[in-house]
Amino acid sequence: MPPTITAFERSPDGGRGLARDMRVRWALEEAGQPYEVRLVSFSAMKAPDHVALQPFGQIPTYEEDDLVLFESGAIVLHIAERHAGLLPDHANDRARAIAWMFAALDTVEPPILELITVKILEGDKPWRNERLALVEDRIRSRLKQLSVRLDDADWLDGAFSAADLLMVSVLLRLKSSGLLDDYVNLAAYVARGEARPAYKRAFAAQLAVFNAASSVG
Amino acid sequence: MPPTITAFERSPDGGRGLARDMRVRWALEEAGQPYEVRLVSFSAMKAPDHVALQPFGQIPTYEEDDLVLFESGAIVLHIAERHAGLLPDHANDRARAIAWMFAALDTVEPPILELITVKILEGDKPWRNERLALVEDRIRSRLKQLSVRLDDADWLDGAFSAADLLMVSVLLRLKSSGLLDDYVNLAAYVARGEARPAYKRAFAAQLAVFNAASSVG
Repeated sequence: MPPTITAFERSPDGGRGLARDMRVRWALEEAGQPYEVRLVSFSAMKAPDHVALQPFGQIPTYEEDDLVLFESGAIVLHIAERHAGLLPDHANDRARAIAWMFAALDTVEPPILELITVKILEGDKPWRNERLALVEDRIRSRLKQLSVRLDDADWLDGAFSAADLLMVSVLLRLKSSGLLDDYVNLAAYVARGEARPAYKRAFAAQLAVFNAASSVG
Repeated sequence: MPPTITAFERSPDGGRGLARDMRVRWALEEAGQPYEVRLVSFSAMKAPDHVALQPFGQIPTYEEDDLVLFESGAIVLHIAERHAGLLPDHANDRARAIAWMFAALDTVEPPILELITVKILEGDKPWRNERLALVEDRIRSRLKQLSVRLDDADWLDGAFSAADLLMVSVLLRLKSSGLLDDYVNLAAYVARGEARPAYKRAFAAQLAVFNAASSVG
């Protein structure tokens, strides 16, 4: 039985591939693993049967035989540890790749997620514009550090890994903001991620879900 | 050779054990592993030789033979995978514990870190009080979900694991805010973490560093 993941019935990102099921889809595509998708509505995400799988009422979840997982970072790591193509073989290389996975989620993504707070959750507040400038500065300081480290390499540490999958996914949130444009190597890095066949298949799959929901009206 | 970690020469938390070297110290103490500490000043953290170890100019780092790691979550996972006492033996139990590690860092901690933004980074802004209320509401909604899931269990999923180590560390940031007081089971959970001998040894070690720096003046 292939694993089953959950995804938004109608993603709030409008099909741009920013919802976190995309990271799991991409990992499964890189690993060449088939999967099933169960779509959940916003109200179903808060219902007891989903909360039993995901204590915080979010997507994605991952069900495989009698294992139930949540947290996209953990699911990507689980897939990467069990299939070839997403983590290096040597123990030290592997530990460093996992460190970069945590860096993507715990150091680079948090200021980027603040854009959602500023623009959407608090988009009607009088402090919106002044805070937006502060948050953008915090993002730029992270991007600068990441840009220096990446330098002219294709990927973060040797061959493409689950760390790049997560880092590219995190940086893709900045696409519409223009903030990536000042960091030519980071923009090219993101484009390399998007050009991977596995990314394209995952992106198409999540877009098809969004388009199907939209056509229903 | 025992591993060497880096820590603040003078922690901005005043020795309360909230800096991220504490999580690594605690993990090493749970695993019964000796370690060395190299203290770094704020200016040394941004210097090229430290940035070579930690691309974002932060602490902690972890050096063991020819392996260099950064990101406290990754370091704790590395220690937990190599020594007994921090992860269950069975593969599925282990995967779920790792999922809870990601949940602590990626779902529970982000709104809690916003308290630092509100109170310190933007503590002089006119929106401080109104935003503080919004951030506290976001924290409470996460705490409520976590409290429901924990219920009357001692730990998140079976025996104490690296997931509890990280979750307790994250919740400890709330101690001075009073926000934990409404969730009796979470407050007791944090107290159980603090009562562990390994936690106490790690706490004493980081406090000794802070006190030594303070006595120098």
